[in-house]
Order: sequence, then structure tokens, then C-alpha cells
Amino acid sequence: MATLCRPAVSVPEHVITRADTLELARTLHADHPQLELALRLIENTGVQKRHIVQPIEDTLKHPGLDARNARYEAEAKARVPEVVRRALDAAELRTRDIDVIIYVSCTGFMMPSLTAWLINEMEFDSDTRQIPIAQLGCAAGGAAVNRAHDFCTAYPDANALIVACEFCSLCYQPTDLGIGNLLSNGLFGDGIAAAVVRGRGGTGVSLERNRSYLVPDTEDWIAYEVRSTGFHFQLDKRVPGTMEPLAPALKELAALHGWDASQLDFYIIHAGGPRILDDLSKFLGVPSEAFRFSRATLTEYGNIASAVVLDALRRMFEEGGNRDAACGLLAGFGPGITAEMSLGRWRQHEQ
Amino acid sequence: MATLCRPAVSVPEHVITRADTLELARTLHADHPQLELALRLIENTGVQKRHIVQPIEDTLKHPGLDARNARYEAEAKARVPEVVRRALDAAELRTRDIDVIIYVSCTGFMMPSLTAWLINEMEFDSDTRQIPIAQLGCAAGGAAVNRAHDFCTAYPDANALIVACEFCSLCYQPTDLGIGNLLSNGLFGDGIAAAVVRGRGGTGVSLERNRSYLVPDTEDWIAYEVRSTGFHFQLDKRVPGTMEPLAPALKELAALHGWDASQLDFYIIHAGGPRILDDLSKFLGVPSEAFRFSRATLTEYGNIASAVVLDALRRMFEEGGNRDAACGLLAGFGPGITAEMSLGRWRQHEQ
Repeated sequence: MATLCRPAVSVPEHVITRADTLELARTLHADHPQLELALRLIENTGVQKRHIVQPIEDTLKHPGLDARNARYEAEAKARVPEVVRRALDAAELRTRDIDVIIYVSCTGFMMPSLTAWLINEMEFDSDTRQIPIAQLGCAAGGAAVNRAHDFCTAYPDANALIVACEFCSLCYQPTDLGIGNLLSNGLFGDGIAAAVVRGRGGTGVSLERNRSYLVPDTEDWIAYEVRSTGFHFQLDKRVPGTMEPLAPALKELAALHGWDASQLDFYIIHAGGPRILDDLSKFLGVPSEAFRFSRATLTEYGNIASAVVLDALRRMFEEGGNRDAACGLLAGFGPGITAEMSLGRWRQHEQ
Repeated sequence: MATLCRPAVSVPEHVITRADTLELARTLHADHPQLELALRLIENTGVQKRHIVQPIEDTLKHPGLDARNARYEAEAKARVPEVVRRALDAAELRTRDIDVIIYVSCTGFMMPSLTAWLINEMEFDSDTRQIPIAQLGCAAGGAAVNRAHDFCTAYPDANALIVACEFCSLCYQPTDLGIGNLLSNGLFGDGIAAAVVRGRGGTGVSLERNRSYLVPDTEDWIAYEVRSTGFHFQLDKRVPGTMEPLAPALKELAALHGWDASQLDFYIIHAGGPRILDDLSKFLGVPSEAFRFSRATLTEYGNIASAVVLDALRRMFEEGGNRDAACGLLAGFGPGITAEMSLGRWRQHEQ
């Protein structure tokens, strides 16, 4: 049985508070006809602070895609290994025990993927499989868990390492002035998360069933425009309402497994924004408190894209985990609109 | 047992012959100090013609990354569905029978991936899993086969659709004048391939074992620089010699399976260039004729990146397949330097 072990998470040292964000919006967009709406939306995110890889004055400059992507690579190389090491330690494994690295990141692009560098740098086995995924955005955290689960289902003695590396601040586009962009500028943060899915043993969420779901005909609701200035984030105003068509897919998944989606013991949900959490709470009929891990991630780090679900899970570990066999749901949401969902039980394994 | 069924392949309507390529190199780079070397290298590729998505005069222009990537998206949407339909027909399946789409492409970037559009457009099930991989380059054809194999190992009743969509001509960079670039300009072609891996039934290569291998400390031998003009292909002059360190990994894989890599019945190998095929023939100790499928792809289409292995396999199907239980090797090579290898037997299944 594949077990998702304790995630390691790291956020960068540069902090931007909500007050900073609001002040910046007022200064940079003083003449914007929808400034008041933007300020209100940013306040409503509930994000109190975010962590970013550069000081804010550098973040606000666009030095060109060449420099931006080089920075992505340098920051990833500087920051990822330490997080990976902690995730391995938490799972009581060494690099040599890992059979596949699933690396998800939508905020920079490298070919070869960082996986090749990691294998060389950290001395993973040369046979380690590489699954780099760049195009699932915020859903990729859930996708990584699910593909790791699939892999350990195929090879029950295997172990998968998941890495989610997101530097959303390196996708800041100063010329994008739509209301969705202004909101995004106040919502997204940087963060790195890693976790091991152990084929055997390990303490954490024993993964039992997973499902993907694409909300029909919404592929342009969350998207990148790829331009000479890099990735330009496009956010449709219908996105916050996504939970209404998605909640039935979560309920169906639980029902297929003989569970009731409204009665689970824990929920690890992508905190895309506050409305996502509020609506899901409503449509699933669960108390808001059930999403406290995700809400804490959103409040303290902002939306750190594919890393959110792993950070929310880390917070559950820090709360002491759960009672043995407690039933839970993990779900990432992102462009497509795609949901990557899984069901599992809390297990404390004897080593 | 997962079976890799007959691939469908499509190459675009615009043809550039070897004579055209040489003439262009002479005209565009008349003053290049290494022109003669470039011409010799291009002649040595053995590529007779390539197919590209635009007329050559448009291909040689760089209209900016915005337009390039928009073109990638438009061409993919215009061309991929027909190839997918033929791959499904060849596997005697419908879209509703597919559980996962593995879409590999390193010559353009879309988020969401084309998978989301395909699911909507071709009415795949909303539950279809999406595995878009952009960062494994030419190795991604082999990786797609291997991940499909893993998936069907985890879920034996599942079916995987593989799509490799490569428009290398949309990564032409007129300002890149290194000798590796001039060679690449004469080597790469455009092509789309699709194939189904059926969990049960189907005629083709019954997949038995797969392996990935990263040649240590070669991650900068084949790489993209990501710039405001798009992906810039970097090819180290040591790449053609890659088969010497890679051949032992192929031999080990075969030996682990109780097979002899020099005595297999068929070989479906990524035709990165002629030296790759010549060397592998030498290091594995197999006659050059054994690589005839790959060589035909290289000659007629050029290096079509991740689509090469599927096109080479198509050619084996067109030759009538193989005798029942014939043993073979399939291998993709690409940046990392990564090899994605698999072993399988030819099987004719009763439907």
C-alpha cells in the first residue's frame, strides 16, 4: 500500500505582507479604473503574507525572459536539494531507495528537467525514472501524488519522490493589468515542497484510490499565454465558481469507495483562493474548520501553486497527524480545469 | 499484459529535401567559417527529406515567440485529432476506452496541455488522466511507452493513449550559428505520432520490462536555453558518442530479463542521428540492418524527436510485424542524457 509520507516545505526569505501588497497596488495602479475592486479582491484572499525569492523591488522589474528563466534555474538548484533531503529523512529513506522522481513546476522551464541535475547532484541512482510535469499548474501537486500512487501500485516495492517547485513571483508581468492579473499579483507566492510516497512502510496517508476530472469546456478559464516575456497568466472570472461543477466529482469518488465525502476525517485541498475553500465547504457540506490546513497555507504563504497540497498536508502532520485509519481526501485543482483527487487513510506504520 | 499497438503517424505537407537544405546552408551561411564542416555533417545525417508545417520561406522567418507558440497550438489542434483517431482505430478502441493520455512534445508549450483540449474536442471521458511531458525531448517517446506500460501494470484493464507531437521547425533560430545548430537545422523534422497501449488484447509489442537510465554528468550535453525568442537548442559535440556509455545499460536491461541484447529479433531505436545508429549497432554487436526501421524514419522524415520511435515501430507493422513471441527492444534517447528503454515480445492477440 503506497503511503504519502510527511512533506518537507521551504519558503524563501523575502516576505511581502498584505499591507505591502495593497500599498503596491495603490502606488503602481493609482489610475486603474478598477483599483478599488482589485484592492477588495486582494483583501478578500485572506493572504496575510507571501514569501518570494527576490526582494520586492527586483520582483517588480522584468529583466526579460532569458534572465527570468536563468533565475528560475539558479533558485531551483540553490533551494530544492535541502527540501528533498528533509523529505527523504522524514520518510527514512536514502536517495538510492527512490525509483522515480516526479517533478512538478509551472513557473519556469528547463530541458533537461531539474530531475537530471538532481540525480547527478544528489546521487540518486542512474536508473531513477524522471516524470517532469510543467503543464498541470496548481493541479500538479495532486497529479504528482496520484502518479506516485499509480507507480507504487504497479511496483509495490518502489518509492516515489515528489517535488513541487514554484516561484510564481518569477512570472510577474508588469504590463498585465486585467483585474484577474491584479488579483493574481496579490494571491500567488513562492514555495518548494517535497514528499516521498513509499511503496511499503512509512507513516502518513495510505493512498487507496485516485481520480482525475476535467470540467468540460473550461480549458481557457485558467491558462498561460506564452509570449516573448514569458508565461502570462490568464484567469477567467468564472474560476472562483469552479467548485459547483467539481464537488460532484469529489462526491462520486468517495461514493465509489464506499465513503461519504461530507463525513471524512481530514481534507487536504488546493487553496486556490478563499472562494474555492468556502464553496467546497458548502457543496460538500463540511464545516469550514475541516479546511484549516489549506486555509493556513493560503494565509501564511499565499497560493503556492502545486506546492499547496503538500504544505497543507505538512500542517496536518504538525498537528500530530490523525487517528489510525482516519479517512481523508486530497485534491489539487488547476488549469483544464483539472482536479486530481485521491482518497486515503492515516496509517502509522511500524518500521 | 500491456500491448503497444500499431502507431499512426502524420507528417506535414511541406517538404524540404537534402538538396534544398544544403543549398540553403550555402546561401544563408556563405561566410560561415565552418560552412564546409556543416555541409559535410548535414550530408552525413543521411536525411533525404523532411516535412515541415509551413513553407520553407515562412519557416526561416522568426516572427517572435508569441506568434511561434500560437502557431504551435494551431498546428497541433489542426493535426493531432486525425492521428489520434487512426491510432484508436488501429487498436480497435474508442475514446471512451482510454484511461490516460500521455502527451509528449518539446517544441511548443501550452498550459493547459493539449490533453485538456483533446478530451473536450474528441469526447474522451472527463475522468481521463493527463500526463503532459515537455522536458524529456527526444527521449519522451520511449518515456511515454514506459509510463503507459507502468500505468497498465498498475491497472491491468486500463488503456493508455500516447501522443507525440513535434514541430521542430517552429524552434528554428536564425541567429544560432554554432556548428551544432547548423547541423540541427539539417537534421530535425516535424511529425505527429500516436499509439495505444492496451491493458488487455491488441496486436503489437507486449511490454515486459522497462528501465530509465541517465548517463552521469551529461545534463548539459543536450539542452534548451529558454530565451525571449523561445527554445534555443544546445547540442554538445560529444552527443554523437553517447552510445558507448549507454550500450551497457541496454545490455544490462536485456540480461536482467534473461535476454541477450545482441540477439534480439527487432530493434526500435531513436534515430537521433546516423552515428547513434552506427555506434549502437557496433556496441551491441548487431547488424546495421536490424535498425532499418529507425534508419528509414531518419532518411524520410529526419529526426522527428519523440515521434521517432513510434514511427520506426509503425514501419515494422507495415513490414508485417514479426513472428509470434519475437523478442525486441525499444529505446528513446534524449536530454539528460536520458535513455528510456523497454523490452517486449511481438504478440498477435485474438480479439
